[in-house]
Amino acid sequence: MPLISLLTDFGLQDTFVAEMKAVILSICPEARIIDISHLVKKFDIKMGSFLLARAAPYFPNGTVHIAVVDPGVGGKRRPIVVQTPRSIFVGPDNGLMIPAAQADGALHVYKITHRSIMRNEISATFEGRDIFAPVGAHLARGLSATEVGREVTDYIAAPFGEPTFDGRTAICEIVHIDSFGNVVTNLTRSLFHRLKLKPTRKVRISMNKNRVTARFVRTYSDLSQNELGILIGSHGFVEVACRERSAAKRLRARTGHRLRVYGV
Amino acid sequence: MPLISLLTDFGLQDTFVAEMKAVILSICPEARIIDISHLVKKFDIKMGSFLLARAAPYFPNGTVHIAVVDPGVGGKRRPIVVQTPRSIFVGPDNGLMIPAAQADGALHVYKITHRSIMRNEISATFEGRDIFAPVGAHLARGLSATEVGREVTDYIAAPFGEPTFDGRTAICEIVHIDSFGNVVTNLTRSLFHRLKLKPTRKVRISMNKNRVTARFVRTYSDLSQNELGILIGSHGFVEVACRERSAAKRLRARTGHRLRVYGV
Amino acid sequence: MPLISLLTDFGLQDTFVAEMKAVILSICPEARIIDISHLVKKFDIKMGSFLLARAAPYFPNGTVHIAVVDPGVGGKRRPIVVQTPRSIFVGPDNGLMIPAAQADGALHVYKITHRSIMRNEISATFEGRDIFAPVGAHLARGLSATEVGREVTDYIAAPFGEPTFDGRTAICEIVHIDSFGNVVTNLTRSLFHRLKLKPTRKVRISMNKNRVTARFVRTYSDLSQNELGILIGSHGFVEVACRERSAAKRLRARTGHRLRVYGV
Repeated sequence: MPLISLLTDFGLQDTFVAEMKAVILSICPEARIIDISHLVKKFDIKMGSFLLARAAPYFPNGTVHIAVVDPGVGGKRRPIVVQTPRSIFVGPDNGLMIPAAQADGALHVYKITHRSIMRNEISATFEGRDIFAPVGAHLARGLSATEVGREVTDYIAAPFGEPTFDGRTAICEIVHIDSFGNVVTNLTRSLFHRLKLKPTRKVRISMNKNRVTARFVRTYSDLSQNELGILIGSHGFVEVACRERSAAKRLRARTGHRLRVYGV
Repeated sequence: MPLISLLTDFGLQDTFVAEMKAVILSICPEARIIDISHLVKKFDIKMGSFLLARAAPYFPNGTVHIAVVDPGVGGKRRPIVVQTPRSIFVGPDNGLMIPAAQADGALHVYKITHRSIMRNEISATFEGRDIFAPVGAHLARGLSATEVGREVTDYIAAPFGEPTFDGRTAICEIVHIDSFGNVVTNLTRSLFHRLKLKPTRKVRISMNKNRVTARFVRTYSDLSQNELGILIGSHGFVEVACRERSAAKRLRARTGHRLRVYGV
Repeated sequence: MPLISLLTDFGLQDTFVAEMKAVILSICPEARIIDISHLVKKFDIKMGSFLLARAAPYFPNGTVHIAVVDPGVGGKRRPIVVQTPRSIFVGPDNGLMIPAAQADGALHVYKITHRSIMRNEISATFEGRDIFAPVGAHLARGLSATEVGREVTDYIAAPFGEPTFDGRTAICEIVHIDSFGNVVTNLTRSLFHRLKLKPTRKVRISMNKNRVTARFVRTYSDLSQNELGILIGSHGFVEVACRERSAAKRLRARTGHRLRVYGV
C-alpha cells in the first residue's frame, strides 16, 4: 500500500490540502495519505524543514513525502525530487527537504521537467496541486525518480545550521516551539554530551540579555510544578521545558533566537 | 474504492466530524474519507458553498461529497441529495451544494425521506451524523440517488451571485479570504478578460471608500516585497494579493464586501 | 480492515500525531486511522475523557481507541489497555479512558509491560509514539489484550462525577463547551426527566451568582435569534444553547463550573 505524507503551510481552513489529496487519489487511488502538518508558519522554510526532518524517520521505507513551503512559487526556483536510500521527497528547491533527506543517507536530486506527470493545466500560484501532488502520486505508483527529469547537484542547502561551542558553552538556535511551549533547539543529544553534564545538575541558559537557571532532567514529570528544566526531547534534540506551563512564554523565546547553554 | 469528502463548520476540537466518519465506516468500511474543510465560518453558507465549489472539481468521478453548514438543522429545511453527471452531493437544502453541483452540469435533486438509510435514532440537533453521514455511506456503497426519496425542483438556489459590469468596471464580491490573506472574488478569468487588461498593467480597486492601485501579474513572485497585485488565482478566480503579506489586512477586506475593479 | 481512533492534546501544528500514525502504519499497514480530536485542552483529562466517551459509541465493534492526555508521562503512572465487550482502549492509567470503556459494559484493565510490543527505543517524554501507538497497532493486528501484561484492578477511576439532586433542582457540572458555544453538562436525558419539565416550559439556570431563564426546546431552530434555550443534545446530555450565538460567552461559562437547573 503506497504511503504519502504531506507537509505544507496551507493551513486547515482552505481547500488547498484537499485539492492536493483529490489529485493524488485521482492518479493513485490506493495511496494512504498522512498529514505531517499544515500549520507550518507561512513561508517559514526553517520551521518546515525541522518538522519534516523530525517526523520522516518514523515513516516506513518507501514513503513519498510531499512538502510545500514555497515563497517562490511560480518564480524561478525549481520543482525537485530527492531520492534517498529509503524515501522520496517532492517539493520546491529551497532547502526545505534537505535535512530530512540527509538523515536518510546519500541523496540524489532530480529537477522535475517531464510535462506528462504534471496536471494538464498548471496555475502560476499553486504548484502543490499542479506539480508536486501528481508527481508524488506517480512516484507512489512506482515511477522512478530518475524519470522525472535530469539529476542536478546545485540544489539549495539546508536552511539551518549546527550549534557551535565556546569551551564548555554550547551556542545553539531555537528551531521550533511546540504547542506545549517547549523550546526545541538544534542541539543534539551527542553534541549536548560534550557539556559533560550529569542529570539533575543545574545549567545556565542565556538568551538575549536574560539569564535563567534550569535543572537537567530526564522527563517532564521530574520537574516540580512551574519549574524550568532542560532535557533531551523525544526526537533527540535538547529542549527547555516548564512543567505543565509554556517555557516559551516564560523565556519570551521565538524560533531563530540564539541560546547559550552551560553547566554551573 | 468509494471516495467520500466532508465539508462542515464543525471545527476541529469537537467530536462531530469523528462521529460522522465512524458512522460512515460502520456502513461502508472500505470508504476513503477526505476532509475538504471543517473550518467554514459557523453558519456561513456562502463561504461553505464557495469552498466546496472550489475543491470538488479536483475529485475523481463518483465521489460522494457530504456538506454540512446548516443553521436550520432540526427545523423545516429538507435534507437532500444532488446527483450530477459525475458526483453526488449530500446535505441540507439551503443552497450550500448548488454552485459545486452546477459546475458538474445538469443536476437532479432528491429529498431524503427513506427512514431505513438513516441512523435508527435521529437527534434533533445533529443530522450530519444521523442523516447525511449514513445516506452518504449508502450512496458510496452503490445506492442510487433516486432511492433516497422523490425528486424535487423547488430547491434553494446558490447563495452567491455573478459580478456585474458598469462599462469597463467590474463590480464583484469578496467570496473568500484565504489563510495567506489573499482576497478572492467571484470574478472569473473569462469575465475578467472583458476588462481587456494586459499583464503588468495597473488596475484601480475601490472598496468602501478606499481606493488602491495594484499591478496585474501572473504570480505572487512577480510582485516585489509588500507590493499589492491582482492575479488570476489557481482556481480561475481573480484575487488581490500582497507578496508574503496579507492583502486582506492591508485592505481591511471581509467576505461579502463589494469591489470595483478597472484599468487605469 | 482494522480501525484505530486517536484522541490527544498534541495539537495540529506539531508532528506528534503524524509520528504516531507513522509508527502504527509501520506495524499494521492496513489500519484505518480516524482522528477523534487532537485539540483537547492541554493536560485536561476531564475534557479528554468526555470527548472520548461521546465519540466512541459511534465506532464499529472491534475499534482500537488510542487516547493520550498525559500530564504524568515518563513518571510512575502506568500505561494500560482496557478491554470491553466491543472495543479496546490504549493509553495512560489516569482515568481518561474509563467513562468511554464503562459505557461499553464490563471492563478488564491490563498493565502494558511486554517490551517486545513497544518501540525499541523509548523516549522519556513521548510514550504516545513509543508505547501506545505500537501497542495499539499490535492489538489492531489481532494481539489479545491479555498478552500486553498482567490484569490490574486498582486503575484510576473516571475523572468526572454524576449530577446530584436537591428536590427538583439538578446540580450538574459543565463538562464541555463545543465550538458553537453550546454549554454541555453531565446531566443525562434520563436524569433530566426527573425534573418533570415539559417542552417549551421555562427553566431557571443559576451559575456562580448569575441567574438566567431559558426555554426547554427540542432543537436549536426552535429558538428565536439570540434566545437562550436548554435542550437534550445529540449525545443525550443536556446543554444550554443560544440560536446562532455562543451561550458560553453569554453565560461566561467554563468547563468545571457548576450549574443549578430547575423549572419555573
